[in-house]
Amino acid sequence: MVARAVEAPLVIGVDVGGTKIRVGLIDREGNVLEAREESSPDASQAEFLAALDASVEELLSTGRRVAAIGFGVPSNLERGTGRVLRATNLPLADVDLVARARERFGVPVAIENDGNAATLAEWTLGAGRGSQTMVMLTLGTGVGGGLVLDGKLYRGWAELGHVVVQENGPVCGCGGRGHLEVLAAGTAADRVAGELYGEAGDSHLLLERAHAGEQAAVEAVARLGASLGAAVGSFANMFDPDVTVVGGGFGAAAGELVLSPAREAARREAMPPADEKLRLVAAELGAEAGLVGAGLVAFEALDGRRR
Amino acid sequence: MVARAVEAPLVIGVDVGGTKIRVGLIDREGNVLEAREESSPDASQAEFLAALDASVEELLSTGRRVAAIGFGVPSNLERGTGRVLRATNLPLADVDLVARARERFGVPVAIENDGNAATLAEWTLGAGRGSQTMVMLTLGTGVGGGLVLDGKLYRGWAELGHVVVQENGPVCGCGGRGHLEVLAAGTAADRVAGELYGEAGDSHLLLERAHAGEQAAVEAVARLGASLGAAVGSFANMFDPDVTVVGGGFGAAAGELVLSPAREAARREAMPPADEKLRLVAAELGAEAGLVGAGLVAFEALDGRRR
Repeated sequence: MVARAVEAPLVIGVDVGGTKIRVGLIDREGNVLEAREESSPDASQAEFLAALDASVEELLSTGRRVAAIGFGVPSNLERGTGRVLRATNLPLADVDLVARARERFGVPVAIENDGNAATLAEWTLGAGRGSQTMVMLTLGTGVGGGLVLDGKLYRGWAELGHVVVQENGPVCGCGGRGHLEVLAAGTAADRVAGELYGEAGDSHLLLERAHAGEQAAVEAVARLGASLGAAVGSFANMFDPDVTVVGGGFGAAAGELVLSPAREAARREAMPPADEKLRLVAAELGAEAGLVGAGLVAFEALDGRRR
Repeated sequence: MVARAVEAPLVIGVDVGGTKIRVGLIDREGNVLEAREESSPDASQAEFLAALDASVEELLSTGRRVAAIGFGVPSNLERGTGRVLRATNLPLADVDLVARARERFGVPVAIENDGNAATLAEWTLGAGRGSQTMVMLTLGTGVGGGLVLDGKLYRGWAELGHVVVQENGPVCGCGGRGHLEVLAAGTAADRVAGELYGEAGDSHLLLERAHAGEQAAVEAVARLGASLGAAVGSFANMFDPDVTVVGGGFGAAAGELVLSPAREAARREAMPPADEKLRLVAAELGAEAGLVGAGLVAFEALDGRRR
């Protein structure tokens, strides 16, 4: 057995989610050597920041040397500085996590939108390996996403879940109408399940029934997939991607029940020759993508490739 | 009066459209010193190419020294080579206009999608001056467009007219459904005018009536504007642009009749803080944008900044 070089740098990735904070010790190949997870406190910003610090410190207390820290945050970030402007579903607004962590822990620190971080992970280590242009969509409760354009991660907003798919359609959590997020992810599945099964219905039951082959459930999930496919077709016409990757908890659980009708719809909407070459595939890193992506962001900071 | 330096380089821009070919002698500041226009021949590819050559040669026959040639073409171009893969509404497929022109005329030659060329012009010299991120939409018979991302023209497809705005909506010329192009430009205006005025109705009559204040016409144009705005909101959520510029013949003719309702819809769909900062403005170069853009593409070739 070959011994691992002791000095190979390790970093901490911090995946800040609306329901939980995941912190992991990650190597350059994206392996998660150790991870902790705790519920995101439903609290003030000060308490939330204290919980974040405590998560990192707990991992540091194992005694491993940590070379850098990377954050993935569901937030709009200020260009250039990485300052958190406003996070959805989190008590974070107008706060510089990078400067705070740099000062507190004395290592290079970087931050990225969580969708972009997951995209970086799937592109580098997952289903998007080797692609020059890639669209990533994470279907969870909502829809996140990211873009790789011409061989580079697009660092802008890329709120791909908030493109209009049905003008004047159902109201989205953001206040818009008919956005992809409200049509094709967990929220939509919960709504549809409620219609089919009453109060007991939720997205888990819907997928369970659909996987079991219940016709009404299969068709309902296929309708979500068709809306997803309309957006995938739009993105194909904008970027002509080598591959479109679908991840996220709901995306992973639904699998081909969503991907197959999405593929059909996307091929109809995509213009030639993007229609024939269209590749719509499942993410490979699953729930780990966000954490691994945060780790890769830390390595970018370590290598001086970004703020 | 200061004499113009005789040796300031001039280029030829070739704006290849579905209905006409425009060719112009253009200086580095984007001034069109001389221009010719002729109908696009509805002919074979060989005849079309001969007409293109003749247009350039006619301008060359004026005796001015030409340092480079740039093409703007309504076509998907092969990445890297610039080969025309397939043009919409034109008898051009699988042909390398750059290599042909370089061989024939012995100067640097470059090519760009016509939407990207117009975007380059508005960004450099028009309504997008000074912006780092810009979305451009040209409303003509169809809808073209382009993107400037983080201070660079995006060289990909950017078929912004073919994003889905109404899932399963009206059939688009490309075969898709409910695309922006079929909802918010000349084709849509013709359709609506037909409903309002019968056979005599077309987009010109519709805009004439709307400009004259006829309520039904104003509302019909506003509905096109609302669909435009839904897409503008989608792009705002994807790119958080400094400015969104609307050009094209129909866009220029409609002006605020379309832009005002579009602005309202876009602000509803855009997430904070993109909603408040949203700027949706008319193009400044009008019908010249495509030709000037082709000239700027020629200067890029001259300066060795691209293929």
